[in-house]
Amino acid sequence: MRLRNKPWAKEKLMQNPKIVIQEPEHFRGRWSEAFAKKQLLHIEIGTGKGRFITGMAKQNPHINYIGIEKQESAIVSALDKILEEQLDNVKLLNVDASRLVEYFQKNDIERVYLNFSDPWPKNRHEKRRLTYKSFLRMYESVLVDGGEIHFKTDNQGLFEYSLKSFSEYGLLLKDISLDLHNSGMEDNVMTEYEEKFSAKGQRIYRCEVKYLNE
Amino acid sequence: MRLRNKPWAKEKLMQNPKIVIQEPEHFRGRWSEAFAKKQLLHIEIGTGKGRFITGMAKQNPHINYIGIEKQESAIVSALDKILEEQLDNVKLLNVDASRLVEYFQKNDIERVYLNFSDPWPKNRHEKRRLTYKSFLRMYESVLVDGGEIHFKTDNQGLFEYSLKSFSEYGLLLKDISLDLHNSGMEDNVMTEYEEKFSAKGQRIYRCEVKYLNE
Repeated sequence: MRLRNKPWAKEKLMQNPKIVIQEPEHFRGRWSEAFAKKQLLHIEIGTGKGRFITGMAKQNPHINYIGIEKQESAIVSALDKILEEQLDNVKLLNVDASRLVEYFQKNDIERVYLNFSDPWPKNRHEKRRLTYKSFLRMYESVLVDGGEIHFKTDNQGLFEYSLKSFSEYGLLLKDISLDLHNSGMEDNVMTEYEEKFSAKGQRIYRCEVKYLNE
Repeated sequence: MRLRNKPWAKEKLMQNPKIVIQEPEHFRGRWSEAFAKKQLLHIEIGTGKGRFITGMAKQNPHINYIGIEKQESAIVSALDKILEEQLDNVKLLNVDASRLVEYFQKNDIERVYLNFSDPWPKNRHEKRRLTYKSFLRMYESVLVDGGEIHFKTDNQGLFEYSLKSFSEYGLLLKDISLDLHNSGMEDNVMTEYEEKFSAKGQRIYRCEVKYLNE
């Protein structure tokens, strides 16, 4: 995502430590303590400006959410939305997703959302795709048994790649839509990016996969 | 497929027993005896008028092919193509695919092709879809270990269903294209149906799945 530089963003994030968790390693294994209520935890990797995660938090007050986003100038908009809506079931982490295991341990998370992740189309960048096997292994190490990944993208190549990667890893394909916005899914919460692209008539691909118990 | 009735079709099929095998149970476990050369065997279920299977047979003389089609008035066109091209590596079975195990045994077949199979869109007809689990079990019982299914369709719902069904059955997704005719696949042999539909700008979906060894 290209964003205008916001030099004040870092300070604003620091000033809201109840929402933008400053020392997430502190909550490893006991994330319910960071929230008002003890309930299931879903995370989104690459939260951007937070429209999806805040929309989900509003729609599902019985779930706790964490949005993870490394770009300060994006995540600060997510913070604004949470402040404005006074949501107590969504928190933010301004960290790189590759460090997930420092902040979460096995069984901390029920579901991972990946929305419109960077496609990294060149073969030599395969390892950077968030659906590459090393990431699938990382998610497994913080999810409950039977945990799920819910994945949306408009990028055909990334979707094809990801379906193969999920299959090779042994994940179960629970649900799939090859044209989400014409599929009748009623509770779909759109990201900023999704709205822009689907308005142009681009197809959105979506799937749900599940880690099987050993 | 809707076809005009051809009362003479049955007789013509009977008159060419070297190509349209009359007692296929006779070759169970020894199909190479039905062909000029002993080589790998690929079958297509729902061969229709035979454009795909004859095109594949021409393109790959080192493979033996069998096209299975229950409609006499369709398969007779496949017979015409084989006679015209004098192909010795493709045979036809005018039988119902559900009786596959009567004609083939474990390890007889390396690959099954399913092209533009009837989508049977109603939920109550799920069991008739050629990618339903009972069919996947049937293919497994006649394929070699590590055998493959190669599947093409223009029907989005059937493709979504089939990907889930393959995953639930434990098949490995080896390859997938969500827009075959814009994917750069060079050796694609089209079916009659495929040419008609892709000319209208319809997307063609394709995947290859593999049975894993126990």
